Amino acid sequence: MSNPEDSAPTQQDVSLPPAPPAADLKSQSSAPSSFGVSEIVSRWRREDILKRRALALRGFAFIFSLLAFIIMASNKHGDWKDFDKYEEFRYVLAIEILSTLYTGAQVLRQFHELSTGKSVILPQKSVFIDFIGDQSAAYLQMSAASSAVPMTNRMREGSDSFFTDSLAASVTMSFFAFLSLALSSIISGYKLSTHSYI
Amino acid sequence: MSNPEDSAPTQQDVSLPPAPPAADLKSQSSAPSSFGVSEIVSRWRREDILKRRALALRGFAFIFSLLAFIIMASNKHGDWKDFDKYEEFRYVLAIEILSTLYTGAQVLRQFHELSTGKSVILPQKSVFIDFIGDQSAAYLQMSAASSAVPMTNRMREGSDSFFTDSLAASVTMSFFAFLSLALSSIISGYKLSTHSYI
Repeated sequence: MSNPEDSAPTQQDVSLPPAPPAADLKSQSSAPSSFGVSEIVSRWRREDILKRRALALRGFAFIFSLLAFIIMASNKHGDWKDFDKYEEFRYVLAIEILSTLYTGAQVLRQFHELSTGKSVILPQKSVFIDFIGDQSAAYLQMSAASSAVPMTNRMREGSDSFFTDSLAASVTMSFFAFLSLALSSIISGYKLSTHSYI
Repeated sequence: MSNPEDSAPTQQDVSLPPAPPAADLKSQSSAPSSFGVSEIVSRWRREDILKRRALALRGFAFIFSLLAFIIMASNKHGDWKDFDKYEEFRYVLAIEILSTLYTGAQVLRQFHELSTGKSVILPQKSVFIDFIGDQSAAYLQMSAASSAVPMTNRMREGSDSFFTDSLAASVTMSFFAFLSLALSSIISGYKLSTHSYI
């Protein structure tokens, strides 16, 4: 209702049919086909925009995951200042590796599809894979960031060093990756719901 | 473009008009209306099933959130065995209170709607509220459960007491609530995508 993006196509649908009677009678027979074509074109355009937005969001998720992974993996300063002495930071590293691989593969696939016009995976399967992948990756990123926050907080209370700052940076990148993936999962959920499975 | 998901409805639009001429000429006038009625009835039935499933899932989420909340809130055994001495467990408690209130309100609303047939909120608004609410609650539950796991693990390595068992129980309930809410958010995402905004 308050969303102009969705009320707009509806208004168009409603206002288009009354148009032909007002026009010349000769063009009446061609009106339904032109109505169908304009609807298809507007739908194609909407889908193209969605595809590009999904690509951009996954690109952001890839960059943030990669940053979180690199910052966490290089965070070894000896003694208690090794990230791999704490299970929550090892968990963050594992999730960031998975997320980097997943988003990287998705970006490569989508980029290839946009440039060549050929689909790598069957579209019937890809809508499922996209949605399940995005949604799972978003939950995992949320889980990784949340698990690392309490220990990072406790360490920062004691001492503020390069080690704790890097931990905080990695957690923040993980949270940004979560935001991108959460938005991307809304787009792939929309695509899955409007898919007709024929 | 290469997405059959969208070419399918288009095919349907194009192939529907030629169908009546192939059928008996007498039934030509009734064919479109009977097709429309059966389609609407099957859609109503599908929506009714979805409504009941959403109600069941939110009911489960409510029970699990309430259990997680009660188990965590009553987990005070003096000395270091007080849940409120640790920020992660206070966070779990806060999220469980929010989740219990949200799922409780949703269950009450849906139950009222199913029994009286009247909608409490405008359906145009409720699809947004449902999706955003379910999805946020699922992320928050995942966040709460994940944040509490590392400290619970560490405590269970040291000593296995009633306190640590209750922590584990509360985290598990929180995870079950997450699963229910994640499934519920898929249903409300589907409803949001297929909503016509008229």
